[in-house]
Amino acid sequence: MTSGKDPNRPSILGGPTVILVNPQLGENIGACARAMLNCGLTDLRLVKPRDGWPNEKAQAAASGADLVLDNARLYETTAEAVADLQMVFATTVRTRGMIQRFVTPREAAKEMRAGYSAGSTVGVLFGPERSGLVNDDLTLAGTLITVPLNPSFASLNLAQAVLLIGYEWFQTGEEIPAERVLHTGQTRLATKGELVNLFEHLEEALDRTGFFTTPEKRPSMVRTLRNALERMEMTEQEVRTFHGVIASLAGKRKDQL
Amino acid sequence: MTSGKDPNRPSILGGPTVILVNPQLGENIGACARAMLNCGLTDLRLVKPRDGWPNEKAQAAASGADLVLDNARLYETTAEAVADLQMVFATTVRTRGMIQRFVTPREAAKEMRAGYSAGSTVGVLFGPERSGLVNDDLTLAGTLITVPLNPSFASLNLAQAVLLIGYEWFQTGEEIPAERVLHTGQTRLATKGELVNLFEHLEEALDRTGFFTTPEKRPSMVRTLRNALERMEMTEQEVRTFHGVIASLAGKRKDQL
Repeated sequence: MTSGKDPNRPSILGGPTVILVNPQLGENIGACARAMLNCGLTDLRLVKPRDGWPNEKAQAAASGADLVLDNARLYETTAEAVADLQMVFATTVRTRGMIQRFVTPREAAKEMRAGYSAGSTVGVLFGPERSGLVNDDLTLAGTLITVPLNPSFASLNLAQAVLLIGYEWFQTGEEIPAERVLHTGQTRLATKGELVNLFEHLEEALDRTGFFTTPEKRPSMVRTLRNALERMEMTEQEVRTFHGVIASLAGKRKDQL
Repeated sequence: MTSGKDPNRPSILGGPTVILVNPQLGENIGACARAMLNCGLTDLRLVKPRDGWPNEKAQAAASGADLVLDNARLYETTAEAVADLQMVFATTVRTRGMIQRFVTPREAAKEMRAGYSAGSTVGVLFGPERSGLVNDDLTLAGTLITVPLNPSFASLNLAQAVLLIGYEWFQTGEEIPAERVLHTGQTRLATKGELVNLFEHLEEALDRTGFFTTPEKRPSMVRTLRNALERMEMTEQEVRTFHGVIASLAGKRKDQL
């Protein structure tokens, strides 16, 4: 019982394995490691990186994602790199006449999450920078992932592709709490009563200063103002601030009474 | 009948404006342009790029997204860069005690698509590489976007952030819009320029009526007011109404001059 961790709360680290097949530039490997850790992914495998391994440029580009690089494993062939994985996906931009299942990153993430949660080992293959994965590599994957992008300019760099897959993976992890949360900090949302008070303060001041030139139009003007102000979803603190604003503008400050 | 284009099929190019505020490295600007075009975005605006503009390194890093770089526009201030935009979002990783609406990229993309489809001008602000956007820039945005990522390693590079927003935008392309459109009737959403005008009118009136009792607190009070008013997503007509409100309250009516 020495750890402060909640044992029932799954770690956000872990997740699917990222396999880079024949990556060329160390910078790109580092940028991939960074994108992985951004998304809580930590298991990186490298199949014959062109410039050898370890690679100083990868360290520099990882911007602190050393955890990922330090644990990266090297393989001679793609087949060896995926040998222990149960669900393998492969990213590709082009349809090459392969009769395989194509899914979007979002669909793939759901499948990965389902498999991973059920205890399967999951991985995603990424090809070399210029050429992408060869057909023999694609064949190792059960499912191909194509990112829906501008068809006339769809080529992503390696780390961007890793990021999009990782991002979609991460989004499946936690239900993001409220749909549209207003960050209220130390204060709280105003009650309707507080709002109506504020509206009445404003309208009284407007009456006094002759804003409503035609009495028939007063009700619809008041509605316009209230509707607009309602949309602010004011905090209690902001309501007080606006009371101050009205008082200041309308000249009802204490020192003037 | 010389064009092969289907005139009824909307172009996938266009979309929200990307505004990079004080970007440092040309490489990053180029990588952003590439990520933008990947997602069909073409309108890039630069606020005081550190190393000047145009920038050769940006060209090299854009990997062919010259279309975006060639049409990029330069601005002196963030306020000028967003002056003609009606819906402005800002990306930020941290909560800074600002009382503004926070949404995920996915939620933001739906709102952007709905607004864009309804004819609004839409933009997203991205801060400089290391520091992110300053509070005064965040205040220009109606809504803040935070990417749900590994909380202990959440910092994305600039192009990665642009890519995630653009990617989510692109994914909404074939969905049904109008999730959360403000019904503006005969009027339209106010532009940022119109809003800033209104804010300045209010602040000038508050200055005149002695609202800001301590000069040190003026900037944060102004931010509080602007943030709250931003959230109203005012129409152009409402902006005019509130000009009238302020003028009435502050006693600057014609009959009193």
